[in-house]
Amino acid sequence: MSSFKQEPHKLLVIPGPIEVADEVLYANAHPSMSHMSADFVPVLGDCIRMTREVLYTTTAQPFIIAGSGTFGWDQVAANLTEPGDSVLLLNSGYFGDNFTECLRAYGAEVDEVRANFGAAADLGEVAKALNAKKYKLLAFTHVDTSTGVLSDAKAIAETVKRVSPDTLVVVDGVCSVGSEEIRFDAWGIDVVLTASQKGLGTPPGLSILVAGQRAIKAYEARTRPVASYYGSWKKWIPVMQAYEKGSAAYFATPPVNLIYAYHASLTQITKGSPSLEERFALHRQASKRVKDAVAALGLKQLPFDSAFAANGMTAVYFPEGIKASDIVPRMLQKDVVIAGGIHKDHKDEYFRIGHMGITVANPERGDIDKIISALKESLAEAFASKKSA
Amino acid sequence: MSSFKQEPHKLLVIPGPIEVADEVLYANAHPSMSHMSADFVPVLGDCIRMTREVLYTTTAQPFIIAGSGTFGWDQVAANLTEPGDSVLLLNSGYFGDNFTECLRAYGAEVDEVRANFGAAADLGEVAKALNAKKYKLLAFTHVDTSTGVLSDAKAIAETVKRVSPDTLVVVDGVCSVGSEEIRFDAWGIDVVLTASQKGLGTPPGLSILVAGQRAIKAYEARTRPVASYYGSWKKWIPVMQAYEKGSAAYFATPPVNLIYAYHASLTQITKGSPSLEERFALHRQASKRVKDAVAALGLKQLPFDSAFAANGMTAVYFPEGIKASDIVPRMLQKDVVIAGGIHKDHKDEYFRIGHMGITVANPERGDIDKIISALKESLAEAFASKKSA
Repeated sequence: MSSFKQEPHKLLVIPGPIEVADEVLYANAHPSMSHMSADFVPVLGDCIRMTREVLYTTTAQPFIIAGSGTFGWDQVAANLTEPGDSVLLLNSGYFGDNFTECLRAYGAEVDEVRANFGAAADLGEVAKALNAKKYKLLAFTHVDTSTGVLSDAKAIAETVKRVSPDTLVVVDGVCSVGSEEIRFDAWGIDVVLTASQKGLGTPPGLSILVAGQRAIKAYEARTRPVASYYGSWKKWIPVMQAYEKGSAAYFATPPVNLIYAYHASLTQITKGSPSLEERFALHRQASKRVKDAVAALGLKQLPFDSAFAANGMTAVYFPEGIKASDIVPRMLQKDVVIAGGIHKDHKDEYFRIGHMGITVANPERGDIDKIISALKESLAEAFASKKSA
Repeated sequence: MSSFKQEPHKLLVIPGPIEVADEVLYANAHPSMSHMSADFVPVLGDCIRMTREVLYTTTAQPFIIAGSGTFGWDQVAANLTEPGDSVLLLNSGYFGDNFTECLRAYGAEVDEVRANFGAAADLGEVAKALNAKKYKLLAFTHVDTSTGVLSDAKAIAETVKRVSPDTLVVVDGVCSVGSEEIRFDAWGIDVVLTASQKGLGTPPGLSILVAGQRAIKAYEARTRPVASYYGSWKKWIPVMQAYEKGSAAYFATPPVNLIYAYHASLTQITKGSPSLEERFALHRQASKRVKDAVAALGLKQLPFDSAFAANGMTAVYFPEGIKASDIVPRMLQKDVVIAGGIHKDHKDEYFRIGHMGITVANPERGDIDKIISALKESLAEAFASKKSA
């Protein structure tokens, strides 16, 4: 362990990227290494194994590739759908819209079960849709960061198993892996895709996807070639398997430093303290603290039904007469970086606070207190400034 | 400038990733920043501007995206070809084979002018092919790291302008940008694609592509939608233009830390000492020193004709009776990391040494001396061990 300390900086509490531990940043500054070297091979191999641990799966195949979370959608579309294949997408916001657009770009026929703004898709409607038509796969955004809506992954997977057991269950876990519990094997999930910069506590730049054996079989059974080169599992499966077994293989140069960083973060998450279970509990507790504090300030939140509230972020409506430019810059003056809205029809109505990773897993940092007190002060200042105007 | 010093490590002189400066690694350990923040926006904006400078272009559009060099092929295939479009590919090795495979994965009809092993494609044959058939684009690997062959980008572009001026000229510059001079505007090149981890002196994980206005127009004139989502210029052009103009835009989260690192390296390359012109001259000088030393040791080199020899790497045949396991581990014992062969038919016959970036631009490091003396000793030890066996 080095004594590296990152530069003093504003507290970054948007729904990703998130605050990154000194050890992880130091790993990102690792001297340049050959991607084929005996030193690096086990680092990627360990990342593959630890990615499985985070999702409680023993048999699924992880893919760790240079790219953003978005690239996971392309992997799903290119490897698991063929033009004309039917997909059911449960749309709970901005990221649902875009996942649908990606699937259609590859020729899939996408039907949507659209949730109301600030709600998750209705499971009765989902069951009805699955009954009415045969879908090759069902996909949903686990946490749509545009609305703070957490979909019930376990219940959705159960519904699929009951109504249409051959349909693959694909989870966009970009803003949930590492901050929300996902029991890949136990719940019967087929694919989880995510990125490095949220609950996984690593700088952005890694597309991380985990495909269960049913998904791999569906990919193997396709009749047309994969509609991508860089995203083709045909290329990546042998590479991932080789690194896991301890030998190098080449398709495209892996982002070596980011993989060192991811390794450092995964080691904290899977082997450190708090344990993985405790980590999820800490996310729930921190989320409750933030949401209670926001409610105590008299502010409305998204989602409207707290049963669908994500544990890694909070979306808050501006009160009457107050807008983003009254709050976000005042938070910034207090060294706290929050995010504006992103939903296409409502983006000016609310702001977003992220609380994932070390911000919640290392409570001695005091990040949650800092967020709450900065928000309280910023809001008071904003109201005072309106009154005096 | 910080006093950060990277950990002691073996000298990495493969044809990429390469040795990375302390300042660049320190930038890669930058505290987490919002990709939408006023602090980060000009960093990506500057990277876009400095990428143009490295290629001597004033009007082309750079794309800086999380991915590997390989992903640049997908961008070309998905945005600039439609199924059935004709492409002429000048194949000088392993990377030519794979670029062809990528183009075909997107439905392009690819004809190849194949060079002999260790040579560049014959310009007469290229002209003949361009005369015989109308090609939408011609593509070639500027430096094929499997053979060390440097294709003459200027002469190829001239041939295209003369014989088939509407054909787009696409350069795979993964192992040439930053180490070989490329005059994008003056030579009439339409696309250069590259990656961060070679002549650009940054850790791997960035796909960097520069498209001239003719290429952008060809993309705009396509009749079918782009066959990719993550790689679609429709998504990325507005993002790149926004950042360059000084405001944030969102499509997929950029790899923020790698962009800080790329910024640090580009600042050295375009604003530091040596100048860009001097940098290319230093690559030529260092290359000559390595190649002369290899010749003085009695070893044969690839390419056979030194007129086609890359300046950022040297490919060397093992002498009679000596193989990779006699040399590569002995170099490693001397803290010098070199690479084996990669060409599919000849990979066990040769090894490769990279000499790019700070290894040549900062001669005070003594890297070239270290490479040459380690090679001399390793070879002597290998011969001695054979004799005594």
